Amino acid sequence: MSENNSESIKDNFIEKILNPKSICVFGANNNLMTTMGSMQLRNIIAGGGFNGNIFPVHPRLEKVQGIKAYQSIFDIPIIPDLAFIILPTRIVPQVMEECGQKGVKNLIITSGGFRESGSDGIELSKQIDEIAKKYNMRFIGPNCLGIYNGWYGYPDKKNAYFNTFWIYLPHKRGNISIISQSGTVAAQTAFHTNDLGIKIGKSISVGNERNIDLVDVLKYLKNDPLTDVIGLYIEEIKQGRQFIKLVKEITPKKPIVAIYAGGTKAAARSIMSHTGSISADSKIYEAVFKETGIISTNSIMDFLYYLRTLSQAQSYNIFPRGNRIGIITDSGGPGAMMTKTAELYGLEVPEFSQELQSEIKKYIPKTASSVNPVDITFHENFMNMFIKFPKLLMKSHEIDAVIVFGVYDFDDIMNVIEKSGMKLDENMKNMREVFETMVPKSIKSLMKKYSIPVFFAGPYPYRYPWMQKFVEHDLPIFSMWDDITKCFNILCRYAEYRNKLS
Amino acid sequence: MSENNSESIKDNFIEKILNPKSICVFGANNNLMTTMGSMQLRNIIAGGGFNGNIFPVHPRLEKVQGIKAYQSIFDIPIIPDLAFIILPTRIVPQVMEECGQKGVKNLIITSGGFRESGSDGIELSKQIDEIAKKYNMRFIGPNCLGIYNGWYGYPDKKNAYFNTFWIYLPHKRGNISIISQSGTVAAQTAFHTNDLGIKIGKSISVGNERNIDLVDVLKYLKNDPLTDVIGLYIEEIKQGRQFIKLVKEITPKKPIVAIYAGGTKAAARSIMSHTGSISADSKIYEAVFKETGIISTNSIMDFLYYLRTLSQAQSYNIFPRGNRIGIITDSGGPGAMMTKTAELYGLEVPEFSQELQSEIKKYIPKTASSVNPVDITFHENFMNMFIKFPKLLMKSHEIDAVIVFGVYDFDDIMNVIEKSGMKLDENMKNMREVFETMVPKSIKSLMKKYSIPVFFAGPYPYRYPWMQKFVEHDLPIFSMWDDITKCFNILCRYAEYRNKLS
Repeated sequence: MSENNSESIKDNFIEKILNPKSICVFGANNNLMTTMGSMQLRNIIAGGGFNGNIFPVHPRLEKVQGIKAYQSIFDIPIIPDLAFIILPTRIVPQVMEECGQKGVKNLIITSGGFRESGSDGIELSKQIDEIAKKYNMRFIGPNCLGIYNGWYGYPDKKNAYFNTFWIYLPHKRGNISIISQSGTVAAQTAFHTNDLGIKIGKSISVGNERNIDLVDVLKYLKNDPLTDVIGLYIEEIKQGRQFIKLVKEITPKKPIVAIYAGGTKAAARSIMSHTGSISADSKIYEAVFKETGIISTNSIMDFLYYLRTLSQAQSYNIFPRGNRIGIITDSGGPGAMMTKTAELYGLEVPEFSQELQSEIKKYIPKTASSVNPVDITFHENFMNMFIKFPKLLMKSHEIDAVIVFGVYDFDDIMNVIEKSGMKLDENMKNMREVFETMVPKSIKSLMKKYSIPVFFAGPYPYRYPWMQKFVEHDLPIFSMWDDITKCFNILCRYAEYRNKLS
Repeated sequence: MSENNSESIKDNFIEKILNPKSICVFGANNNLMTTMGSMQLRNIIAGGGFNGNIFPVHPRLEKVQGIKAYQSIFDIPIIPDLAFIILPTRIVPQVMEECGQKGVKNLIITSGGFRESGSDGIELSKQIDEIAKKYNMRFIGPNCLGIYNGWYGYPDKKNAYFNTFWIYLPHKRGNISIISQSGTVAAQTAFHTNDLGIKIGKSISVGNERNIDLVDVLKYLKNDPLTDVIGLYIEEIKQGRQFIKLVKEITPKKPIVAIYAGGTKAAARSIMSHTGSISADSKIYEAVFKETGIISTNSIMDFLYYLRTLSQAQSYNIFPRGNRIGIITDSGGPGAMMTKTAELYGLEVPEFSQELQSEIKKYIPKTASSVNPVDITFHENFMNMFIKFPKLLMKSHEIDAVIVFGVYDFDDIMNVIEKSGMKLDENMKNMREVFETMVPKSIKSLMKKYSIPVFFAGPYPYRYPWMQKFVEHDLPIFSMWDDITKCFNILCRYAEYRNKLS
């Protein structure tokens, strides 16, 4: 990352909105359950970074959520870096006007009821445009949830975050940034991103994009040293040409995954009443995505999985050189199903050479298979499965990715055994420790050495502790086997695209 | 269900294998972690139904897992109803021979190393065929995980189950039965079926199908009063003609969902080394599935979701009359995305009539949308969302299914609020109780009255307690929104098929 970029980015107005040192909040009170703004203030406070520079404005309350409140913005002793507004629509222009008079330059307007609500809303939209122009203000929204910045104040502040969403659970921060015309996609995905180890550093709900739009934020993320992967939820693109030009510059370095929610008749109607956008034919968007190297999907879970896959590829700098998969499993069914879906995606599951098969055969039962998939059947040596076999496959140069299906929750299994009155030997009890000290380190160094990704999977939902061990170590872990070949396919396609352009 | 069926089924050999009163087990010891058979015996014991009639056979041990063991089957004081064998391949014929001499008529042979392992295995397969013929024995396997019967001994025994899988977690029993040529699909799906409320009553891992095959088990399930929906994992079909004839009789009454794992080059190789089957072109299977009304998928999670959808349709006897969806949400993005995927599946999300929209408008904010999707935005009256709006939509006869996206974990939210030092009023605290007493009962009675299914969804993974409340009440609940339109599409297709034939 050039120093140039990091320096110039500090002056970017999006960077300022993401990292205000002080904030005034309109529309919060002490009733967290019934007003969204109250929950949002609660979450701003919980981020822990403002050192007291939070200024609730409230006409009657002396304190809001334990913090001194001000009757008017003019009573606040400083000029806040950011105004956060979640008030009934009709009051918004007046409050904006006051913010302008006070000297506030940046705003987030959460309130809905603008363009998406018909002619009155359009009139109000024009009013807020004019006020912003008059005072040279920039604002996100209206009709948005605001922003999440996991890197708030970084590197000076170590663990603070800035979260204006009403969803209290912050994303785990990392190299993914999201720009979304849906607040839900920006915010309420946190329950899943936390469970799956999808590390989102910045998430911006842009709402109606009256002042700041997709292209503005993309320009910022292009130069943001903390962003390596970008996720977009799109209902419309306002600056089409600029979008295409900009994205073409971004995707060779930072992959972009997008959902386009429009393109069908009823979807167009739904979008009009959501953000007031006019959506276009899917084919237009598909053509734009193809031309610009954007990876697209209609599924929110695929969106999240693809982001994770690309995020890990970026942080480990591992991009596969080809599309050949080696599968190691303890179970024929998943092996067969992954093989089938891989082939349907155009990937290869090649038969291993006799040399490689003889190597593998040394460590598996006679009834097991060494062909590819390797089906080692019921077994007890998990270190073979987790390290030795992946290593053998990587060394062979016969594959470009490894899948290991056979992650079990050993704590759960041992618990069951002990509860049944059986004894566990010391080796078993140490399995957790052995795993922790051996597997993540070895696999990461092998992946880097050979530039070959390893995907792990087991039959458990993500909530199980041994699934979470992989998540903690930033190793790709999958519940069941459906999503692995899908993700590897996306990674291959992206690696090809990137190679072609470099 | 005719009494005829229930009576005749008692004499069925599959029914006997699923409900033995006594069992002898070959190949279990006290080391649960390192031998699969030991874990399997543990799980048989845990099912709690055998009243002491479990007889481990072991050459040296006096007790296996606390139970008196016998050196030879001839020492067992009774003739066991079932022999369960998980021993090295070469010993299997000898042990079968002894079972025959003892008079055991039914067996489960878990051991692998037969057909799937080449010429030696084929020779051994022929040997076990002959022994079975000689003594008039029937067996499941070899190379299988055995069976799970959640209805073991029912209705005499209330809560016993019979589980020979090495996976200790039993499925939650219900009206779904599975026949699988993969043990993993039969057994290791339990971690998900439990979390998602997919109720599997019987699951049979048929392995190499040397003696009992898919068609045998299907014949049994056709007449089984406890089975309403059938799931199949297929690598090959041995009795093609019989399969087609039989399935055509079953699907108009009991829907069948199938995964066919073969059909690609590498998949064929993988399958050969798994169960020794010769797989055929996907197109042949697709044609058979279409002709016989089987719903097919390549995804294990879709397989489970479709089973749940059809299981609930069967138990509530709710089959939609058309493909029109009404969507109620608090969030524009999910509404738009569900609308788009619905239309891509060929479903309709029709604009509501002015009458219906005026009704809805009475209860939503001005900034909200009543068109379809109904986007009620941030709100506090969850009873409207969960009961009143679904009811309005159902009464209108403008839709054939209702989707409600907006299930939150209120306990989690209230916890966050209280931890932040805010007070909760009594209404909020009672939300759980109000929900419990109102929602499931009202929704179920509305669904039955109008024959319209209601699908609920929220942004949480299934592990969250409020997601589990819906699971407990057997209400269809979805994490995120990807899978809802997909499941409703399957239900519509099945309902059409069923209508056409009846």
